[in-house]
Amino acid sequence: MHANLISHIQKFIELDAHAIEMLHGYFKRTTYKKKESLLKAGQVCRSLHFVEKGCVRMYFITDKATEQITQFAKENWWISDYFSFMDNIPSPYFIQTIEKSEVLSIDAAVFETMLKELPQMERYFRMIMQRAVAASQLRIKYMSELSKEAFYNHFCTSFPEFVQRVPQYMIASYLGLTPEYVSELRKKKL
Amino acid sequence: MHANLISHIQKFIELDAHAIEMLHGYFKRTTYKKKESLLKAGQVCRSLHFVEKGCVRMYFITDKATEQITQFAKENWWISDYFSFMDNIPSPYFIQTIEKSEVLSIDAAVFETMLKELPQMERYFRMIMQRAVAASQLRIKYMSELSKEAFYNHFCTSFPEFVQRVPQYMIASYLGLTPEYVSELRKKKL
Repeated sequence: MHANLISHIQKFIELDAHAIEMLHGYFKRTTYKKKESLLKAGQVCRSLHFVEKGCVRMYFITDKATEQITQFAKENWWISDYFSFMDNIPSPYFIQTIEKSEVLSIDAAVFETMLKELPQMERYFRMIMQRAVAASQLRIKYMSELSKEAFYNHFCTSFPEFVQRVPQYMIASYLGLTPEYVSELRKKKL
Repeated sequence: MHANLISHIQKFIELDAHAIEMLHGYFKRTTYKKKESLLKAGQVCRSLHFVEKGCVRMYFITDKATEQITQFAKENWWISDYFSFMDNIPSPYFIQTIEKSEVLSIDAAVFETMLKELPQMERYFRMIMQRAVAASQLRIKYMSELSKEAFYNHFCTSFPEFVQRVPQYMIASYLGLTPEYVSELRKKKL
């Protein structure tokens, strides 16, 4: 069933058979085609999303009407607009699949019910969020420290799978580079 | 005693008298003079720090031997290098007071003990970390979207207290601007 989610949780906390059964009830599984939307700008982001299979991106539209990607997520990654989710306010983001994907989603009210009924999930989410904060600290360090070329090389080394699966123009958008520049860097690396 | 910390926690979860008493035992209070270090690059960040009074900054030294500030923290804010803290690895960061400060610190082992003895603290830290992730999402959006002038103006509007308390050259470092440019922008705003 929710095989990837359950094993991911079990990396952090213990789950008995009852908890596993309960967890199956809280999450809704949706199969999305390529380029389908989980969230559109202007909507409230009502769910936390866990990617069971596939690959998604989060982006917003800039003043210059271009797509600026801020995050990718693949198998076993969580993705959401957390301010929108917590404070029930419209999101500036789109979340869209890059490939055909299977996503487990939990909405805000069910999330609270789950945390009451299975309080050990507070620990899991505390650890997940703590790792996300750590990753952001590192990303902000790289954004302010690395040259564009070094930032691209670092991304390729850290996330080789995204480089394989994600179109080059999306990687350029994520890194704040032009597609032409990424194309040049790629040739240099070959 | 740890008045600010206790009220901060009580904004998120309920604490009975026993829990409050326990909490006093887990945290160590240190009074720092201006420009004292809580962490130096190369050391493991062994503690989570909560600013009871005062103001601190987190920074690293770039290749060009300049200080790049990545975070500020004032009263009721948490600050730490989370990867270093979680994975017990040397930190690239310095954490240093900007003013005379009082800081409550909890080290990794005591943190785990606290979470076992007061499991409701998992919820508090889950919520704190979730808000930190949300704030990072927003910051990354601004970093990739706003012009330097708009970024400065946004910072002044969002964090007027830092503009009052923190030397101008530190704000410039945080925003990735030269002190001269910030000085010009400041004149423009007056």
